[in-house]
Formats: sequence, C-alpha cells, structure tokens
Amino acid sequence: MTVTHAPPDYECPFCRLAAGGGDALSGPDDIVRRTSGALALISPRMWPNNRGHVLVVPTEHHENLYDQPPAAGHAVQDLVREMAVAIRHCYGSPGVSTRQHNEPAGDQDVWHYHVHVFPRYPDDGLYRLSPLPGYQSAERRRPYADRLRAHFADA
Amino acid sequence: MTVTHAPPDYECPFCRLAAGGGDALSGPDDIVRRTSGALALISPRMWPNNRGHVLVVPTEHHENLYDQPPAAGHAVQDLVREMAVAIRHCYGSPGVSTRQHNEPAGDQDVWHYHVHVFPRYPDDGLYRLSPLPGYQSAERRRPYADRLRAHFADA
Repeated sequence: MTVTHAPPDYECPFCRLAAGGGDALSGPDDIVRRTSGALALISPRMWPNNRGHVLVVPTEHHENLYDQPPAAGHAVQDLVREMAVAIRHCYGSPGVSTRQHNEPAGDQDVWHYHVHVFPRYPDDGLYRLSPLPGYQSAERRRPYADRLRAHFADA
Repeated sequence: MTVTHAPPDYECPFCRLAAGGGDALSGPDDIVRRTSGALALISPRMWPNNRGHVLVVPTEHHENLYDQPPAAGHAVQDLVREMAVAIRHCYGSPGVSTRQHNEPAGDQDVWHYHVHVFPRYPDDGLYRLSPLPGYQSAERRRPYADRLRAHFADA
C-alpha cells in the first residue's frame, strides 16, 4: 500500500544527509553511526527532559512504514536497538522509549521514515510536554553526538 | 546488555497467550495474527480517540529491546508493518503511529517486549490524553479483533 504526503518537489533532508550533505537542522556532525542500511543522527528537536534523542532512518528513501521493504525495516530496527543501548549507557538514562509516526494525522512531518529513540527518566513527562521551541543549533546538538560517537568508537 | 525488572516469579501474560492460554485481559480471541516469530493482539487498554490499538510481541520471551536477538526484532517489525496497513484499512484511520517502552522510567509495565500500533486521527490527542480507566472487557475488545482477523482471512 503506497501512501504519500510529500510534495512533488520535496528535497528530502535525510537523503541529503545520507549522501554526505546537510542543512541548518542536520549535518554530517550529527550522524552518530552508520550501518549498511541505516543511519542514526541527533534530532534537532529536543524535549525539555529528554534532550539529545536520536532519529534512526533507512539509507534508502521510504516515506513511511506501510510499504517499506522488510530489509530496510530490519536495518532500522537493528540500529534502533544499538542506539537504545548506547543512549542508556552514555546518558545514564534508566529507560528508553521509541516512537514512529506515519502521515500528518499520525504526527509525521519529515517525509522519510524515521524512528525516534528517547532517553527516559522518572517522571520526565515526555508525552505531556511539548518540545523546546524551534530547532536546536549545531552547537547544542554536538555534545550529544560526540558522546554517542565515542561510545561506538570505543566498542 | 541484560536489564530486568520482572519479579523472580513473574508469570508472563504474553508467553501464556503464545502458548494458547489467557486471562481476563487477553485471550485467544484477542489474537489477530500469528507469524513464525511474533503475534499481534488487541490491547486491553484503550485510549479515548484511538480505540482498538494493537500490541505486537515476539513469540519468544524477551523483556526489552536492549538484548533482543535481531531475528525476534525483525519478526516483530514485519508484523508491526502488516498491522499498520491492516489498521489503516479496517479502521479507516488516516494515520498510524507506534511506540515501545523499556523499563519503568520508560513507561514499561508488562515485562515482555511489545510494540504498540495505534490508529491515528486528526487532533486525536493521543499523547495528551490518558487511557480509559482500567481494562476493557473481552466484549469491548472483540469487534476490533474480528475486523482485523477478517482482513487477514480475506488477504
């Protein structure tokens, strides 16, 4: 089942990132790990008590879950698991949760499949609170990226 | 990395279900699809505007994401994708979202890995609203299970 909401001239930010490029919201310095089928980056949006969460995306362009080939889904799932372990270790968070959104009614706003991986803390209010306004700068994202990259470099 | 919060004498409700048993919250009539590595059931908890959401669990017992074998994660992911398509079709929901929780700080409360697959509707307030109090009866769960089962029987 193919469902699309991307405009015809959509310039996909995650495809740009996978190809080595970037923009103000995400660039090569935000990528913390790449595998053969997926990559993980620090999200430019941050929730007040869950900062530094990660987005995991397939390298191939697939807009949503519905018709994503199994191999792409598996590559994402494997990297989500690795990132959950890394986030828990590097951030010292006593929990991790994930979420994934499809279509505008499902809160999707970037038209390339992505899974959010959040550090979780007691009473962090993740579901109740809105993200911090706007997008965080490269300087604000960098310390989180550095910690997670170092984890994989040491592994 | 192995992390566990299940009590030593934990009687796992999803393992009971996978073995053909059940309890007041989930029984064989709630199972809408089984694959070689995973099963999907109607959740006994319902959110006011997202009723009939599905839980997808690996057949094997794994408490959380951290040390789940890749094959179990892939089986769950494949069935999550199938359920997203089925929910969108059967419920007429113009979106789907998923979430998955690890450890008490991450909102986990059943100690067997499970992914929530929610039907989504414009302005449904999923993240803002609490679930309906308590658990829904077998009679309340049944119409959702029947619709999804029929979808796969027709496929």
